[in-house]
Amino acid sequence: MLISVSKAEKLIHEALPAAKVTAIPLIEANDHVLAVDIKAERDYPPFDRITKDDIAIASASFTSEGQYMDLSGYAQAGKPQAILQDAAMAIEVATGAPLPQGTDAVIPYEEIEKQAGGVILNTQRVRTGQHIHPQASDSKKGAVLIKKGTIIGSPEIAILGSNGIHTVPVYAKPRIAIITTGDELVATDAKIEPHQLRRSNDAMLQAALQGHGFTKIFCNHVPDDATQLHAEFAKIWDVVDVVLISGGVSKGIYDLIPDVLKKLAVKSISHGVCQRPGKPMWFGKKANTLVFGLPGNPVSALTCTLRYVIPALKKISEYNELLIDYKTLGEAVDVNIPFTVFLPVKASPNREVVSVQHNGSGDFTSLADSSGFIELPSDADQFCAGECYPFISWRAPCLF
Amino acid sequence: MLISVSKAEKLIHEALPAAKVTAIPLIEANDHVLAVDIKAERDYPPFDRITKDDIAIASASFTSEGQYMDLSGYAQAGKPQAILQDAAMAIEVATGAPLPQGTDAVIPYEEIEKQAGGVILNTQRVRTGQHIHPQASDSKKGAVLIKKGTIIGSPEIAILGSNGIHTVPVYAKPRIAIITTGDELVATDAKIEPHQLRRSNDAMLQAALQGHGFTKIFCNHVPDDATQLHAEFAKIWDVVDVVLISGGVSKGIYDLIPDVLKKLAVKSISHGVCQRPGKPMWFGKKANTLVFGLPGNPVSALTCTLRYVIPALKKISEYNELLIDYKTLGEAVDVNIPFTVFLPVKASPNREVVSVQHNGSGDFTSLADSSGFIELPSDADQFCAGECYPFISWRAPCLF
Repeated sequence: MLISVSKAEKLIHEALPAAKVTAIPLIEANDHVLAVDIKAERDYPPFDRITKDDIAIASASFTSEGQYMDLSGYAQAGKPQAILQDAAMAIEVATGAPLPQGTDAVIPYEEIEKQAGGVILNTQRVRTGQHIHPQASDSKKGAVLIKKGTIIGSPEIAILGSNGIHTVPVYAKPRIAIITTGDELVATDAKIEPHQLRRSNDAMLQAALQGHGFTKIFCNHVPDDATQLHAEFAKIWDVVDVVLISGGVSKGIYDLIPDVLKKLAVKSISHGVCQRPGKPMWFGKKANTLVFGLPGNPVSALTCTLRYVIPALKKISEYNELLIDYKTLGEAVDVNIPFTVFLPVKASPNREVVSVQHNGSGDFTSLADSSGFIELPSDADQFCAGECYPFISWRAPCLF
Repeated sequence: MLISVSKAEKLIHEALPAAKVTAIPLIEANDHVLAVDIKAERDYPPFDRITKDDIAIASASFTSEGQYMDLSGYAQAGKPQAILQDAAMAIEVATGAPLPQGTDAVIPYEEIEKQAGGVILNTQRVRTGQHIHPQASDSKKGAVLIKKGTIIGSPEIAILGSNGIHTVPVYAKPRIAIITTGDELVATDAKIEPHQLRRSNDAMLQAALQGHGFTKIFCNHVPDDATQLHAEFAKIWDVVDVVLISGGVSKGIYDLIPDVLKKLAVKSISHGVCQRPGKPMWFGKKANTLVFGLPGNPVSALTCTLRYVIPALKKISEYNELLIDYKTLGEAVDVNIPFTVFLPVKASPNREVVSVQHNGSGDFTSLADSSGFIELPSDADQFCAGECYPFISWRAPCLF
């Protein structure tokens, strides 16, 4: 019994386990979702910070333009607060240094003239607080600097590190097993017979997952043998959160996956979707482990992974910014079946998309010409130039 | 002598070394640029492939609807080509199997009725070649499947693996050293004094580089000491292609970097750019190693990295798709200096961008509110709502 794409999506969504919180080193926290609010460890700046070289004074000591002051000491950035020895004197200061105790104004180098042991002030006015960035003016200790739920990027890494967050509470990213099946498949470097194919779905799916930030991946190839498949699956439940199986989910004699999973008490949630490619897709769950049975054909496997698996992985990791990209059809497209069609397309010069020459889901060699696929809904047969449909890139969207 | 942003960019571009070709395992090839054309290892499909279950026959044996044929044998996907024993018989076939020797047409299960040992053909016509995907119809052996210069994503991984490319010739990605300086900096987990800051530029820059696919990164922190800096730099020339130095490039007493690099015979190409933030940026080269001296302030360091360093790294790795993203200003902006301004902005509800509250380049805590920066050119003081300017995201663009 085939179900619709939206029904398949809904069933997956309902089966998703709750996000898990974990703590990881700051250096690995990029591209994770923050699981707590991050508060300021101290005031920013933590002291009255000097924003300009060259001297600080007590503003009350300023009298008039041309005034001479003796110079004593040096307030250096990154050193403890310096002290002005005598309110009538000036002290040399560097940008970024704490304002010396006893001073309340900074005079920049353009407004002074240095002499041996002193300075002449070439300014008519000295305001209290001038060229000083006051303590806590950026944020106060305890203020929320980054909200729970934020996707951590380089700015957040800077803020986390600066606030002493050496280990970061984030939502755990799922651990994923990619299990390829199919006795006709040989390794990429093996001798090959005409009836054989090289196994590349594992590397292909791994690349797709990595491109979306999922890097905890374990790959294995298992022969089309119920006993070996059973043994392989039995050992991975405890070490992964998501299992992707490539191949063996159609209704053929050698499509053993649904039966093997049934014997392992994996609950079958859906099998078969009104979609091309990817019609045989299987989905199920055992405890909190999700199982996606993907067709073995590379185009089908990649399409199902991008359309269903990656959004599920993102939701498990609490990525809540799942934007849908839309592209405009640059040509009319006729579809002959009452299925949702995921149509490989490439960009046309005017930024619309047009379909690429391909011979159905078996022809993955043409994928290199396309940049992704658009999703044409099942309730129409004819689609017109100028209409907009959801688009998913083969690649992580960063590059295109 | 300050130079313009476009001049700084031009000098960096002119200093870039030629791309280097290397060979890496397929499993690591994602997001690299292919250095050779990839040709088909064999025909695709490599044999006449069956596209529908259920039987194959010699079409010349077909007479009329209702014809009975004996059934013998089974052509299975992933097995050597089967042979039709007798031209008057039919053979069972599976989708994906090689067309059996002696047959030239496939009849789908909807058009047959199985009986014990035979089938009745419920069809009026059998065309030669029906439901067969002919050998080489996707591509011929030796045809170029992926062109040199293509960025490898999951579709290319599938094609490479399927064609026996176990080790992939790609343009090498640069090895990068991030050297932080500044005696006021302590580790993210150290006890901290008021005048000290926590060191986070290393993790921040590493995250920015990783987000753009540059992962060969080595980090070290070196005290503000000419001898130690000299020793650190002296040992990294041979092991990295690009050096990012954070801090020590302004004109203060403790800004030792330009002098240390000079003593190491690093050619100074530029020092100081008409830009805010990032004015003190230093750039030089020794043999084929590029050196970027970035200001120590986090906002400046990140801005310069995204604006100059990442495009340079991409060019070195032969990424030729460097698209510029433009955003529309949602408000008027006044600028008081004749500099290019990299203004932190966030998205407004109507997808325009507006500036975020911040206190100059020292205030990196406000970065978490912004999504990136727009580049306002130096030749104007006032920018109006509705105008478009180049935009760079703090994060790798995948997420936004």
